[in-house]
Amino acid sequence: MPETDPFVVTPYEVKGRIDYDRLRELFGTQAIAPELLDRIRALAGGELSPLLARGIYYSHRDLGPLLEGFAAGRPFFLYSGRGPSGPLHTSHLVSFELCRWLQAKFGVPMYVQITDDEKFWARSGLSREETARWGLENLYDILALGFDPKRTHVFFDSRSIAALYPLAIRAARRITYSSVKAVFGFEPSTNIGLVFYTALQTVPAFWPSWSEGRSIPCLIPCGIDQDPHFRLTRDIAEGMGYPKPALVHSRMVPGLLGEAAMSTTGSARDNALFLNDPPKEIDRKVRNAFTGGRATVEEQRRLGATPEICSVWALWRSRFAPTEEEFGRITADCRSGALLCGDCKSALLERVHGFLWRHAAARERAKTWAESAIVTEAPHPV
Amino acid sequence: MPETDPFVVTPYEVKGRIDYDRLRELFGTQAIAPELLDRIRALAGGELSPLLARGIYYSHRDLGPLLEGFAAGRPFFLYSGRGPSGPLHTSHLVSFELCRWLQAKFGVPMYVQITDDEKFWARSGLSREETARWGLENLYDILALGFDPKRTHVFFDSRSIAALYPLAIRAARRITYSSVKAVFGFEPSTNIGLVFYTALQTVPAFWPSWSEGRSIPCLIPCGIDQDPHFRLTRDIAEGMGYPKPALVHSRMVPGLLGEAAMSTTGSARDNALFLNDPPKEIDRKVRNAFTGGRATVEEQRRLGATPEICSVWALWRSRFAPTEEEFGRITADCRSGALLCGDCKSALLERVHGFLWRHAAARERAKTWAESAIVTEAPHPV
Repeated sequence: MPETDPFVVTPYEVKGRIDYDRLRELFGTQAIAPELLDRIRALAGGELSPLLARGIYYSHRDLGPLLEGFAAGRPFFLYSGRGPSGPLHTSHLVSFELCRWLQAKFGVPMYVQITDDEKFWARSGLSREETARWGLENLYDILALGFDPKRTHVFFDSRSIAALYPLAIRAARRITYSSVKAVFGFEPSTNIGLVFYTALQTVPAFWPSWSEGRSIPCLIPCGIDQDPHFRLTRDIAEGMGYPKPALVHSRMVPGLLGEAAMSTTGSARDNALFLNDPPKEIDRKVRNAFTGGRATVEEQRRLGATPEICSVWALWRSRFAPTEEEFGRITADCRSGALLCGDCKSALLERVHGFLWRHAAARERAKTWAESAIVTEAPHPV
Repeated sequence: MPETDPFVVTPYEVKGRIDYDRLRELFGTQAIAPELLDRIRALAGGELSPLLARGIYYSHRDLGPLLEGFAAGRPFFLYSGRGPSGPLHTSHLVSFELCRWLQAKFGVPMYVQITDDEKFWARSGLSREETARWGLENLYDILALGFDPKRTHVFFDSRSIAALYPLAIRAARRITYSSVKAVFGFEPSTNIGLVFYTALQTVPAFWPSWSEGRSIPCLIPCGIDQDPHFRLTRDIAEGMGYPKPALVHSRMVPGLLGEAAMSTTGSARDNALFLNDPPKEIDRKVRNAFTGGRATVEEQRRLGATPEICSVWALWRSRFAPTEEEFGRITADCRSGALLCGDCKSALLERVHGFLWRHAAARERAKTWAESAIVTEAPHPV
């Protein structure tokens, strides 16, 4: 991707071909260096999440000190969220999958925020009934990834507001309109809910410290586009008496139609595999997916294909090749021309159907404990 | 007051000598005409609150249709609020006193909103502990005025947020930043809590209709300076499916030091009689109060005094002369020179001390039911 391409990345807009190194420089974040990956692997008992090993998470803020603290006996907690505007697709799982892995390896608590208020404010076409319903549906999908019911807590904004609001009041006084305007690019026509919202998105980063009355570090895995939200969080953390949350940032997963970032609204529904897609839809979408293949089979056998631009390879990379050995083999066979796109898609579809089948069962189990994970009470009145 | 004096009236600033007729024209509200007072008197069984009879409430929006509805068997509810920044003074009681009178005469429900979040956002010098504590102290004082425990409900923002938030989410999407900027005069440095706040102040006007699933009209007695808040409420009411609230507006009560409006912060504490002032403070403040008297006793006996500019007369007028007969006599004797300022102040002090003595006992009784009046649950999840 040429460095001169213009691109826009805010929490409400991702446009153009993203130059991820340049974006990291613009945002002022750190690259995840090999030594940091080694440290994570060592602390995780010798394993590394594919999302880290394959560079999908590529940027961070203050991850080093967080890991040092953990090694010295100071556990952290995880925080990630979802704006429920519709069904989840596989790319939405990237941050939750890293959280699940970290929870399993580090034994730490997880806080999920479901922002049904924010999505109502951000999307004029959505009703409150819709964002509330999708909030619950999305929550089942998230918990079904394998979170530990004993260590997983949910802030469902409209239902958890009594728990969140005391801290949100304090956070909101520290954030000016000009800050949010600069960070999010708000217009005069922006509604006052959206203007306020970042105060609520900030709360989970401080909530466990507030609740337990001691300083507990926070780690937020998120798409790089969400960094601006949490920059505000980091700006006000110390003034509120809490540690700055650490962040790890992922690249945006490319869409099946070959766009640089994943847009999935309206006619772009073919751009992603939704968790509620019927099997035939999954087949159709994968068969139509943009690849890095050549014009003819002969040419591809001779010259090989280009995995880096392929949306199917991106699916193997982010989720469907569980081991580095398998992922390496797929990549090498693609590049050499040994693996043709049709066969690659068939193999992927096997994995996708298997995942969705197991996921449906896990989702039913998640429904049995989702309600009990929703936090509804504040630990302190003020 | 000359019409050319510049004055500023917003919910966050009252400055200059207010021309109340001009203000009413600027705000586009209706004068309370004698026929409207006659209608209220008739519906109230032949009596009229001194606050209405003496023109302290002088302006309204849609009061006529509200009364017509009541006469036709369609009861309304009352809504008023308090931003708890410190102790209440007697002028704060003006809107609650009218509510109490209307509740007693019309038998209607009353909703009190205590905005401990908003005051924290509006006053950087106040801590959350302070606004929460003053919220409760102020609430006791308000309920002690004689509200009916069976018909009086309290939204204490930080504690009632679960009840308020579902409607606030809907209201906030209908209010743009440019609207609140225009109405309240916000700056880029305004915090995002204050930007959001009017959404929460709007909720009680719709809450009973939402809760009961039928259209219930709302009447809001408030200082004319609070009209802009409720103009926004009225603007979004019909789009949300609720009736526009009717309003009655009072003049600002002049301070004891003779200012046009009552400022009571910092060194201006002598400008008002606080409900928690010790008796000696009350004596001192009234003795030092600005009057419409003459330079010498002789001159006053000969020329009479000017009640309209007198802060002591304003106290008689707003609260301490219960009957029109007594109020008329005090006014006439002041004007004729028969009543000297010292004697007038002594008579007023008797009344003030008597009121505060009875109020202290009523306040203790109010404490026994205040907690149970606080609404903490939403009637519907969405």
